[in-house]
Amino acid sequence: MSLPYTLLIDPLAADDATSATAGTFREIDASAPALRVGELSTQRGDGIFETIAVVDGHVQESEPHLARLVRSAEICDLPVPNLRQWRAAIAFAREQVPAEGELAMKLVLSRGVEHGPAPTAWLSVNAASDSTDARTKGIRVVTLDRGYDHGVAERAPWLLLGAKTLSYAINMAALREAHRRGADDTIFVTSDGYVMEGPTSSVIARIDGVFVTPKPSGSILAGTTQASLFEHIREHDFPVAERDITVEELRRADAVWLVSSVRLAAPVVDLDGVPLALDAEANAAFTRYLLSPRD
Amino acid sequence: MSLPYTLLIDPLAADDATSATAGTFREIDASAPALRVGELSTQRGDGIFETIAVVDGHVQESEPHLARLVRSAEICDLPVPNLRQWRAAIAFAREQVPAEGELAMKLVLSRGVEHGPAPTAWLSVNAASDSTDARTKGIRVVTLDRGYDHGVAERAPWLLLGAKTLSYAINMAALREAHRRGADDTIFVTSDGYVMEGPTSSVIARIDGVFVTPKPSGSILAGTTQASLFEHIREHDFPVAERDITVEELRRADAVWLVSSVRLAAPVVDLDGVPLALDAEANAAFTRYLLSPRD
Repeated sequence: MSLPYTLLIDPLAADDATSATAGTFREIDASAPALRVGELSTQRGDGIFETIAVVDGHVQESEPHLARLVRSAEICDLPVPNLRQWRAAIAFAREQVPAEGELAMKLVLSRGVEHGPAPTAWLSVNAASDSTDARTKGIRVVTLDRGYDHGVAERAPWLLLGAKTLSYAINMAALREAHRRGADDTIFVTSDGYVMEGPTSSVIARIDGVFVTPKPSGSILAGTTQASLFEHIREHDFPVAERDITVEELRRADAVWLVSSVRLAAPVVDLDGVPLALDAEANAAFTRYLLSPRD
Repeated sequence: MSLPYTLLIDPLAADDATSATAGTFREIDASAPALRVGELSTQRGDGIFETIAVVDGHVQESEPHLARLVRSAEICDLPVPNLRQWRAAIAFAREQVPAEGELAMKLVLSRGVEHGPAPTAWLSVNAASDSTDARTKGIRVVTLDRGYDHGVAERAPWLLLGAKTLSYAINMAALREAHRRGADDTIFVTSDGYVMEGPTSSVIARIDGVFVTPKPSGSILAGTTQASLFEHIREHDFPVAERDITVEELRRADAVWLVSSVRLAAPVVDLDGVPLALDAEANAAFTRYLLSPRD
């Protein structure tokens, strides 16, 4: 089976209780056209997604990703995702893709064709990029102003800050800006100086011996990898905390990581041009845990 | 010829100076799949667009739209749009669509398939929704906080505020919020109280006898319809100004319009629950002008 491996999913078919779930998705050729130009995902970035790691044939913690997909759908007034159907598609795809190596499985739920009857959905599995260097040697990061103040999400829920939408043009532009500045990635900060998240990752810092991450207040995405890693850290009796973190605090952290589903834990070795220590032992333990079957 | 009428455009073919421009786009069936799921427009809302009105066979002021497409491409680090090719596609499409009535012609330039060789581009012509009521009876509008302060664009160009990107999930969510509040549309305001724009329109207000619109400072999209209408107003010796407008000023305006390419000038008759006067004479003149062939 060649990659990307893609299933086109028919959410309407799943509404029919008499149809077998397996009949509600079908393999398609990823190199062939599959979507109409009237798709709202493509016209308006109007849809939501999740990216799940598949490591040596194991789909990593799909349930927290599905829970976040449901939460994103709620925030975006999209139809509730049919989790039975998504679970069946994930399980089906897992059987078709290589059982060795690291893959990235993407779930997409679009609002569908404009004025159309139903959302459009698909699942696509790609080979993961090689993240060895990022995981072992670390990444250079610059902070970038996200333009929002700390309390914006509570005040303006229509900004969709807690949802993982397809409207990622700003996230991609921020990564290009980071590259222009000679960095590998960026951490968004609020206009009033609080740490938010990376464009495709969560921030974890060790400050005064405590592993901290910005409180998922609605202004940032609740990180599935961050949550999993915090559970692991807690089990090993290290203190963790979800709390507000200022940029000044981040600068004096013992160690900082950007964590995400596929690249996993990438230690930050340079923050805005200032070198940061890499805790090789903790870092190796994180990667070992994150690569192991976690559920 | 049935609508939507769609041309798929091959930007790479246009790079070949020996190929005829007309060979670089082709008609497609809009109801058939045309885009891959790997498209960055659909995965990341990563692309730009323009919507141009076609009135009784006349394409309204395509050049300002093409100029803005070029500006959007610059802001988004996309390849420079090939204007010769776009002009040819616009002219070709114009010949194929109904010569009577109001249509909406959409140009889309996507970053293309991930890791692919070229951007993806298409042009699609649809029947315009009937805007008679909005133009004659007016619209109810609520203001919504855009979360950004007034100076954000200069400080953070990676927020792409001056570009018309495909990442419109927030714009669509703001419209849903307006509908939830019993309104037809919304005006985004900065967190520090300045008027910005509608999710798909520009704001024009008459304050103390002067037609004003927010200065296109980079925080808002430069409105093609607003610019055209200002030119018209100026020619009729009424004063116009592009300047900062506070929400308080907007509330005491003599009249307010939301203007856009297809709905044209929609007078605001209710702002956050407070009735606003509709200047029927000015309003009728605006619609007459905007429906006339403007170039």
